[in-house]
Amino acid sequence: MKKSIGAQAMPFPAPVWVVGTYDAEGRPNMMTAAWAGICCSEPPCIAVSLRKARYSYGNVVARQAFTINVPSEQHVKVTDYWGIVSGKDEDKLARAGLTAVASDLVDAPYVKEFPVVMECKVLHQIEIGSHTQFIGEILDIKIEESLLGPEGFPDAERLGLFVLLDGYRGIGRYLGQAFSIGKEV
Amino acid sequence: MKKSIGAQAMPFPAPVWVVGTYDAEGRPNMMTAAWAGICCSEPPCIAVSLRKARYSYGNVVARQAFTINVPSEQHVKVTDYWGIVSGKDEDKLARAGLTAVASDLVDAPYVKEFPVVMECKVLHQIEIGSHTQFIGEILDIKIEESLLGPEGFPDAERLGLFVLLDGYRGIGRYLGQAFSIGKEV
Repeated sequence: MKKSIGAQAMPFPAPVWVVGTYDAEGRPNMMTAAWAGICCSEPPCIAVSLRKARYSYGNVVARQAFTINVPSEQHVKVTDYWGIVSGKDEDKLARAGLTAVASDLVDAPYVKEFPVVMECKVLHQIEIGSHTQFIGEILDIKIEESLLGPEGFPDAERLGLFVLLDGYRGIGRYLGQAFSIGKEV
Repeated sequence: MKKSIGAQAMPFPAPVWVVGTYDAEGRPNMMTAAWAGICCSEPPCIAVSLRKARYSYGNVVARQAFTINVPSEQHVKVTDYWGIVSGKDEDKLARAGLTAVASDLVDAPYVKEFPVVMECKVLHQIEIGSHTQFIGEILDIKIEESLLGPEGFPDAERLGLFVLLDGYRGIGRYLGQAFSIGKEV
């Protein structure tokens, strides 16, 4: 029997990604977002939603570009910090002791120490309500070379990604191959 | 050192959700989608992207409604099957041995046996490329009562959710509280 818990936005689960932008003075800023997801295969696109009050919101509108930086478990505290504090108030990269690298494809910086970055240019901006959704075309994905498996695909075990559910949680055990295990039904 | 792996849509990770719709004859259909995510808090909204060739695409356009059904690990094979086969060709619920329940809030069915459902009415339809993104307002979330903890929140351990990464993977160990552990940085 199902019980109603009301109309709310809740992760089941949500990704935990960091949006990299430049502000008006060209200073790199990083902001954590969870209301996000892949939204198209061709062109490859990613959607991320930001509140207008966020410092990163104006940065994305002005530069029409952002990066999506994917953290590993070892970065979970820094990632949470980047969701709490505003880049208006402090240099979030400096306090975290992490490094911004300028993308050579889009007008946005990425986090050197994170294992994965997707470099995006804005294609659509959709006003929904509390949040504005930016749809960015993924111009490239860059992955830490040591985390690529023998076939050139990222090694999921060693990436050490995490998600948002009732808090942050790591990724667990392998359950089966997509577009394959369903043939047994 | 990061290595480019090109412009592509890849999960880091992606949710694995089942879209519930009615077809023109009022038959319930279920289709698995991974290009999706929460996209707004007020109103609470969820975005899911479908290819136009999908049977569910026409269903959503016609009824302006859908449900997002969240499976547990025990449903991983059925969930994969619902991403492989089209509702044009077979009764996907019957073959899976699962049950459609009519939502009393939106013109769409949900899966009785799955632990969580979000009932959605379409607010926006965005043409991106290979995929069309539907933004649905979440009118209610319903959760299997036995999976709610003492405070009325879903018990993440017992929900047994999974994600798409290099295949399907369960959710792993708890790493820390959101908007909290970052204060230590």
